Amino acid sequence: MSDQKNVFTEMNGSFNGNDAFQKEGADYFSPEEFSKLANARRSVRKFTPEKIPDNVVEACLDLALLAPNSSNLQTWKFYRIKNEEMKKEISYACFSQPAASTAAELIVCVANPSSWKEHCKQMLQTFKSLPIETPKSALLYYKKIAPFVYTVGPLNVLTPFKWVFNNLVGIFKVVPRDPISSFGLLVWSVKSCALACENLMLAFRSYGYDTCPMEGFDACRVKKAMKLNRNETIVMIVGAGKRAEGGLYGPRVRFPREQFIKTL
Amino acid sequence: MSDQKNVFTEMNGSFNGNDAFQKEGADYFSPEEFSKLANARRSVRKFTPEKIPDNVVEACLDLALLAPNSSNLQTWKFYRIKNEEMKKEISYACFSQPAASTAAELIVCVANPSSWKEHCKQMLQTFKSLPIETPKSALLYYKKIAPFVYTVGPLNVLTPFKWVFNNLVGIFKVVPRDPISSFGLLVWSVKSCALACENLMLAFRSYGYDTCPMEGFDACRVKKAMKLNRNETIVMIVGAGKRAEGGLYGPRVRFPREQFIKTL
Repeated sequence: MSDQKNVFTEMNGSFNGNDAFQKEGADYFSPEEFSKLANARRSVRKFTPEKIPDNVVEACLDLALLAPNSSNLQTWKFYRIKNEEMKKEISYACFSQPAASTAAELIVCVANPSSWKEHCKQMLQTFKSLPIETPKSALLYYKKIAPFVYTVGPLNVLTPFKWVFNNLVGIFKVVPRDPISSFGLLVWSVKSCALACENLMLAFRSYGYDTCPMEGFDACRVKKAMKLNRNETIVMIVGAGKRAEGGLYGPRVRFPREQFIKTL
Repeated sequence: MSDQKNVFTEMNGSFNGNDAFQKEGADYFSPEEFSKLANARRSVRKFTPEKIPDNVVEACLDLALLAPNSSNLQTWKFYRIKNEEMKKEISYACFSQPAASTAAELIVCVANPSSWKEHCKQMLQTFKSLPIETPKSALLYYKKIAPFVYTVGPLNVLTPFKWVFNNLVGIFKVVPRDPISSFGLLVWSVKSCALACENLMLAFRSYGYDTCPMEGFDACRVKKAMKLNRNETIVMIVGAGKRAEGGLYGPRVRFPREQFIKTL
């Protein structure tokens, strides 16, 4: 079952032994429910003072972590801001927009690309603890391939070499072109974090709460208030709460689908 | 209702007139259903030859477009690859991984940051066609503020000035720190596209199909095969289809939540 013709192929080959997980979720579907949910999620910019129960917030955060993420390296972090002083500072750094200042919860969603290294090791450790045998290709991936692909060196010292390598070898063979720099790693990590953010917002809506993803904030002030380290980049800040009157600033506007959905 | 104390605040002030949209979706919630769905979504790497009905694929793409996106500028694109020759080329550029080669559908998800300019104008046009009055702050946002924030100039000529401006003014006032370069604009656009990708994958699962988001591909070869222009960046390629036996390569692995969910 294993397919090792190309070392870059992600984690080919099944785990041997207990194959019970193969049908995980396969029997569940409900298109009407998801369509209703996706339609019900709107960016709400004013919330009532009603709090969100702790267990709901935590459940939503757990659902965020179920999003797929690159190589399962989970280079994300979600900070729930409970400290009132810090919440005020962050809300101020969000230009005091009502989506922040009236939010019952502020979740600061962070990409932490440099955690890939540690998480590669942790994957290898985790495999050992699974009750089933890990395919050799998966071990190889986290031991050798991922470190080869994601290492860019201090101050991107390897970037020019990776670029030349990709462009030379790429003439003859299929090569992954990115990430080759810390910029590329950031984009890579931001993607996975954003996938989780969408889960988070849908989860809140499924519990009857609304959200507003904010990108308009002073990242320096937010990072300072939270004492984030320099490897942590804020992807977005999600405000959540109970929708207040006037919380929707307008009807949903989308341009015609033909602009965005193309068939080739 | 309008809050204009800070011009950077996103689209404050409600639309006047018909407020029927205010309750849009507010009455819908079903936490159990979403939890089941989010749990059921797994990255599946082998599909059966079964096709996905056209209407299902199109419905899933429509649901993708319901994701929130920065300033509603919709700088995304979703290419459904039907051409068999192109599909083969893309699958080859995905290192011939089974998630691509066996997929009934390949959706190439693209960020197109430079479309923000055109879409700003389109937003202003769209406002005119709405049956309700658009608040002045929204008109101001798309006429003045968004162009001010997102313009980086050819070859990032404005980046150093924006950086100096932000760092000087930022001493005294809250300022948005990003995007100030084409790189920042790319990250900005990738985020919104990834939010839509999560919707897309959940939508397929809700219809009983599985997906695999792929980031391991030769972007140069894929872009060439698809004749994408240089402003278009591939965020991920989503393979979709009916789960085949052995399609799940392992049980879901997530590190302990305490590593990722922090309370401050």
